[in-house]
Order: sequence, then C-alpha cells, then structure tokens
Amino acid sequence: MGAKQRMVVIGGDAAGMSAASRARRMRAPDELEITAFERGRFTSYSACGIPYWVGGEVDERDQLIARTPEEHRRRGIDLRMRTEVTEIDLDRQCVRTRDLDDEDGAQERWHGFDHLVIATGARPLRPPLPGIDAPGVHGVQSLDDGQELLDRLEERRVRHAVVVGAGYIGVEMAEAFCHRGIHVTVLERAEQPMNTLDPDMGALVHEAMNGNGIETVTGAEVTEVLTGTDGAVRGVATAKGEYPADVVVLGLGVRPETGLARDAGLPLGESGGLLTDLAMRVRGQENVWAGGDCVEVLDLVSGRERYIPLGTHANKHGQVIGRNVGGGFATFPGVVGTAVSRVCDLEIARTGLLEAQAREVGLQYVAVTIRSTSRAGYYPRAAPMHVKMLAERRTGRLLGVQIVGREGAGKRVDIAAVALTAGMTVEQITALDLGYAPPFSPVWDPVLVAARKAAGAVAEDAREADGG
Amino acid sequence: MGAKQRMVVIGGDAAGMSAASRARRMRAPDELEITAFERGRFTSYSACGIPYWVGGEVDERDQLIARTPEEHRRRGIDLRMRTEVTEIDLDRQCVRTRDLDDEDGAQERWHGFDHLVIATGARPLRPPLPGIDAPGVHGVQSLDDGQELLDRLEERRVRHAVVVGAGYIGVEMAEAFCHRGIHVTVLERAEQPMNTLDPDMGALVHEAMNGNGIETVTGAEVTEVLTGTDGAVRGVATAKGEYPADVVVLGLGVRPETGLARDAGLPLGESGGLLTDLAMRVRGQENVWAGGDCVEVLDLVSGRERYIPLGTHANKHGQVIGRNVGGGFATFPGVVGTAVSRVCDLEIARTGLLEAQAREVGLQYVAVTIRSTSRAGYYPRAAPMHVKMLAERRTGRLLGVQIVGREGAGKRVDIAAVALTAGMTVEQITALDLGYAPPFSPVWDPVLVAARKAAGAVAEDAREADGG
Repeated sequence: MGAKQRMVVIGGDAAGMSAASRARRMRAPDELEITAFERGRFTSYSACGIPYWVGGEVDERDQLIARTPEEHRRRGIDLRMRTEVTEIDLDRQCVRTRDLDDEDGAQERWHGFDHLVIATGARPLRPPLPGIDAPGVHGVQSLDDGQELLDRLEERRVRHAVVVGAGYIGVEMAEAFCHRGIHVTVLERAEQPMNTLDPDMGALVHEAMNGNGIETVTGAEVTEVLTGTDGAVRGVATAKGEYPADVVVLGLGVRPETGLARDAGLPLGESGGLLTDLAMRVRGQENVWAGGDCVEVLDLVSGRERYIPLGTHANKHGQVIGRNVGGGFATFPGVVGTAVSRVCDLEIARTGLLEAQAREVGLQYVAVTIRSTSRAGYYPRAAPMHVKMLAERRTGRLLGVQIVGREGAGKRVDIAAVALTAGMTVEQITALDLGYAPPFSPVWDPVLVAARKAAGAVAEDAREADGG
Repeated sequence: MGAKQRMVVIGGDAAGMSAASRARRMRAPDELEITAFERGRFTSYSACGIPYWVGGEVDERDQLIARTPEEHRRRGIDLRMRTEVTEIDLDRQCVRTRDLDDEDGAQERWHGFDHLVIATGARPLRPPLPGIDAPGVHGVQSLDDGQELLDRLEERRVRHAVVVGAGYIGVEMAEAFCHRGIHVTVLERAEQPMNTLDPDMGALVHEAMNGNGIETVTGAEVTEVLTGTDGAVRGVATAKGEYPADVVVLGLGVRPETGLARDAGLPLGESGGLLTDLAMRVRGQENVWAGGDCVEVLDLVSGRERYIPLGTHANKHGQVIGRNVGGGFATFPGVVGTAVSRVCDLEIARTGLLEAQAREVGLQYVAVTIRSTSRAGYYPRAAPMHVKMLAERRTGRLLGVQIVGREGAGKRVDIAAVALTAGMTVEQITALDLGYAPPFSPVWDPVLVAARKAAGAVAEDAREADGG
C-alpha cells in the first residue's frame, strides 16, 4: 500500500467497528492508521438484544456489549467517543468533528482520510404528534434508550404500557412488558400486526398475541400522546379510542441516518439510505465506503435496492469493507430479506418477497399455505406451524416463504433463504435432503410440504394457462 | 394409458405405499389396478419412531402408524397383508406369492403386472455370535420387534440393558432405556460412537453420553451373548470384559432386503442395494421400479451410489415412483447424506462427506471446527455447539458439515444440506442471509462462523500451495 494510509470510520457500532477491526487484523498500525468517531457512549453492542434486557431475560446492559471502547483501543484503533462528525468534505478528503462533552461546543477539528467508512446507522421514526416528547415516551434504539426506559420502570409503578407499532421491535417490546408482568397494549395502524408478513399470516400472529394476553389493536393510528397534570404520559389516543399508559414505547421502525452523507452529495436511494456497489464502496466514489443501517441493500429476489436495517447485515458489511480497505477483496452480494422474531412462544419468520412486494416488481406468482408440525405428529411437543410459500408462475422459482409457528418453526426459514439465494424452483426444493428424525421434524419437513403444494399449484396454473 | 394396467407393489411401508397412493390419486381404478403385498401385520409406519415408543415418549404403537391397511383399502388399493412375495419372474412379468397365515404353506399364486414396484426394505444386521438368538436379544426394526421388546420390559424386572452398536439406532435406544430408568451400556466396536461422524466429533458425543449416565464403551467388539440357566440373556462378552444385561438390543445397522431382486437378476450395487435410474426405475428395466431401504441412492457430493436407508428418502422415492407409474414424470435427484439425531439433550447432525469419505473419492479438503452458541451468547439458554466444516482445496466448494450441540443445533444442518445441493462454496456461504434474532442465533450464525473459518483456511492453503 506504499505510504501510511489513514482510515476514518464514522460510527462505532457493528458495521463501523467490524470494518475497523478487520482492517486492523490485515494491516499493522505502521501501514494503516485507523480512527473511529462515535457520538454515543458505547461501541459494538447488540441493539437487537435491548428488548430482552428490558424484559429481564438478559441481566446486565454490559452483556449486550460485544467489545468496549477500551478493547478496541487495545487492538490498535484510535477510538474517539462522544465525538460527532459534523461534515464530510470530499474535495479535501477530510471530516470535521465536534467533541460533545466540550461545554463550549466550539472545539471543532478536521481529520484527513485516505479511506472513509460511513456507518452512521439509523434513527427511530418519531411522528410529530402532540405529546410525543412527554416524559414516559421511549425509543429502544440505543443502549441509552434502554437504560432510560428501565430507569422509568424502576422509578414508577408502571401498570400499563402501550407499544406503538406491531413490527419486530413492537412485538418484542410487548413480550418484554409481559415478562415484567406489565399489562401491554400494542397499537398498529395497519389491519394486521407484522407488516413484514402478508395479512393472512399476520392474522395468525394477531390471534396468538391476543391469546397470550397482549392486547393488540389494529387499524389504530395514534393521534395524540395524552399527558397528565405532571406533564408525563398517561395514555394514547387513537381514532378507535384511548388507551391508558404509564409508559409508551415507539416501535415504528427506523430511517437511515444519512444527513451527513446527503450534505456531502453522496447518492441516496428512495429510502434515504446510501447506495453502494458490491464491495460496499459508495457509488461513484473511490475511497468512501458505507455499511450497516445507513445503506440500502440489494434484494437478490426482486433485483431492487431495499432498506433492511439488521445487525447481521451490518456485521457482514463491516467485514467486507475492512477486507477491502485492508487491501484484500470481498463483496456483499445482497440479501434475500430473511428475518425471524419471537413473541411469547410464537416464532415468526420470513424470507424473500411478500405478495405485495412480488406484484410491485411485476412478478406473477402462485401462493400456497400449509399447516404441519415442527416434529413428527406423534412426538411430544409437536407444535403446529404454518408455512406460506410463493413461487413464480411458469418457472416455479421460489419467491418467498413465511412461517408462523412455535418452538422449532422460526429457523426453518433458513432452508428457504439458502434456496432463494441459489435460485431454486419449488420442484427442486421438494427433493431436498433435509435432516429428519421424529424429535426434529415430520418425515416430510413442513418446508417440503409447502414446496410440494406450491409445485402442484405451479403445474396446475400452467395447465390452465395453456388450456385457456 | 390405453387398456387397464396392473401395478404390483412388494412391501407395504413408506416407499411402497407412497407409490401406490400417489399412483391411485393420479389414475382411477378402471385405468390402473393396484395390488400391494405386505409380509407383516402393519403398513405405512414410522420405524424411526420406535425408540421413542419404547422409551415411553410415544404412548401407543398405533400413533406410529400413518395409514392402516383398512385406510389403504378404502382408497382403492388391493392390499394383501401377511402375504410374502417369493419370486419375481421378469420374463413372464409376474410375481409368486405365499399366504403366511395359510397353515399348509402350500397356497401359492402368481400375479401378473404391467408395473412392478420393489419396496422390500431392509433387514437388521445380526452377527452369528454364540447366544445371539437367546430370549432377550432384540432388534428394533419393525413394530413387531418393538412390541416384543416392550413386552419383555413389562414381563421382567429389567435393570441392565446393553445396546450393541452406537450408531443412530443405538444411541436412540440408549436414550429410550434412560427414559425408563434402566441402566444402559452401549458397546461400540469402533473407537468412537456415531461412526457417521468423524472421530473428533464422535468424541464429543462420547463425552456427552457418559455425562448423561449412558455408559459408552468403545473399542468393544462383542464376542458372545451370555445366557443364564433359563436360556435367556444375562450379559454380553467383549474383549474388554463382560457386561450384565437383562435385555440386549442390536443396533448394528441394516442391509438391503434384496434377495428376491438378486434372484431375478436385477442389478445390485456394492452394498447389495438395487440400482435405479433418476426416475427410480431399476436400471435396465422398462417397468420395474424400486425405492426405500432396498435401493442405493446417488450421493450428489461424491458422485457415488451409497446405501443410506432413511424414511425421508423412502417417502420421496414412493412419490416419484407413483407419479411415474401414474403417467406423470418425476425424479429423485439424489441425496447429500443428511442425518440428525438426538441422545438425551444432545443434538447430532451431519450432511455431505466425512473426512474418510472425501479421501475415498479422491477429494482433497481443508477441515475446520468452531465452537459457538445456538443463541446470542447473552441470551438465556444459549448452549454451546460445535460445527465442523469440510471444503474442497482450491475451489472452496462445501463438502460436508457435522454439528454436535444442544437445543437448536441439529436442524441447522439443513442450511448446509441446501448449500451442498446448490454446489455453493464456503465463501458464498459466509454471505448467506440467515435468520437472526437473539433467541435464535448469534449475529453470526454458527454455520456462518464455520464458513468464515473454512474460507480462510482455503485461502491460506492456496497461498501456501502456490508459494511452495
């Protein structure tokens, strides 16, 4: 690499610090100087673990921290905490920073780079409703958010919680309140919870949540956060009525944190996420990289860029960037849209396209749903599971799978995730040699049962189309 | 199909009756007459479930029966129970049968066929040792075997059981005895239990079995079954010593039941299993089909025919045969050698090639083993799991995966099974979009961790080879 290079990383969580760590393992400090700026107080933590910490399943905040600032520094990364990057100057190849603990707020510095990694993450959606900033309204995006929520749960006698939004974070937070013995109401604007599933599969989740004592109200758009005489939250108003709440959690999803990148003129997609090439280089740039929750990813099934913020992608992005900056070569080929979640004893998973997503990109499909069990039917604790499968008309190519079930159901989505990546047809899936023994699966794994039904539907559809 | 056709099926279990049922759904009785001959008293049952029935986890024998003779008959299959096929005459296109309940044993009949399906299954290995036929020595291949063993456990006070052979059936039967509170010793000739794993992974199973109170003695070839004054079994002798036993179970594996086929001149592979084409037609025959535990299957990873008797293959074979006989078209493309099993709380899985199997077919490989956890490390009940991965030198193609772990470990083998089928490299596997949430997986799924290490080993190996 010739003269000593300077790598500057903006953001100290999964993508940024993975990139820094991987590059450091490839290049010694006399070849590559690595400086990372983090606005907050923590590095490399599992935001996905926050609901389980709030729910009491994870005891300590520090368990969620994979690597502390001190550990990063010991590994030769110059990490500046509580330091915000306020500007990227691409012409001069430098970034301007501000020390957040400097009381004057005037202490600004410029830092030059040979490689810049943008890993600024995401910010939670916070609609501009009356009362939204009242004490008792919480996000759960960062460890600080989690700590504030836990502090409130300990300070006050919280009997009623309202979770706004029934996506992954929403249902996981609902479970967390359940765990703590707090009555919880989930308010969802859409007609079903989990809009990452088709409505018919979301309805199964809805039913199970209510069965588990999680009051789930759909078609309920929040119009106001109600406050008491002390100014703190006392409830939430929707067109469907008011719901009492000692605490409110916002689970409305996140948007990419790309203000800096936009101001620097870097290319953003429809969602506002940065656009990169396969090596995670920002499009049109030679030495600016981006990864994690601030980028769009290529959806291999639809061929579209999508915004799918997820820790598992962020870690992969970091590895790829670190390897490329370190002088190696790696790519992030894309995603297939896999996600898995749990609410109480319900496991919810999806991969590939929903019906609406398939239509959006002009695909025609057949859709089937089957009900099977996670283990052989005669085996104890065989639990029902539903599998929905979408296959392209005529070609029979797998387009997507959704699973709602109980123990052992969720991770079966991986079978479909690999099959999607490989471009398999549902007919090919019927022949897969999957693990079978009565404690693990019926002799036909539920995914195979769905594939058989989908293959039949593809054939039937083709017959009708040709006959017509 | 023109004139009415006659389909004759030999064997009333998974492969045979799946073939019959599928063909029946495709063709009405006035087009296709279906006759099936079964030697025993049961049809379409789960032999894999027998250990759980013996262990008391499954209450009733009938729970293991997917479809009774009466149910098959109601669906239009002429099923002849307790009827043995004694000869196949390919020239005259007919089979000779004998009614086993006919006391004279003289009643023989010939039945003509247009399509013959051989689904004669397997027979357990029973070495010609002194005492092997003593009362108290049991196989666990059929429902009748299971019933005899259960009867013995109820008639006598059984305190000590010996299981001969530590393969799948052996370890599952060991667990069954544990469940019943019977002290069990497993005797295995090889140096490690589970010879379906590499020895290093088998050692993990060995350790866990002993930890669970299952005395597991390796390098212990059985030389004699010891009998008492009543002629019944009282122990087992090996070169390593004698082990007391009130009951002995043979778990030495099975061989294809292909005497009839051999006598008819049909082609058998090295294992003695029938050889078929991709449509499950016996090689060189127009209208003779075979499936289930009496055939060899194509191993897609090594390109070799192997004998891998497994209910899940048998069911697929039956579907393919039924569809082809019914006038449709289907193939069984082959297997990748996937198997999963459980002993106590240990989950054991494999797919693809072991080290010895890779060498046997001339493949060179790198092998890596990693230790990770089934869930995020901070999440409750995160259990250790070991993943071993083999990748081809230079190409990096995945060759095999072995997993030993606890809850949630076993079925992860499916990820590798699909990747093997698709011919993926370990580098490609590192980028797979697998389901992630803390209750389900660390942010890097253990299979991805193994793939990263394997990809590194492939690169390192190539570098050294080129540098050499």
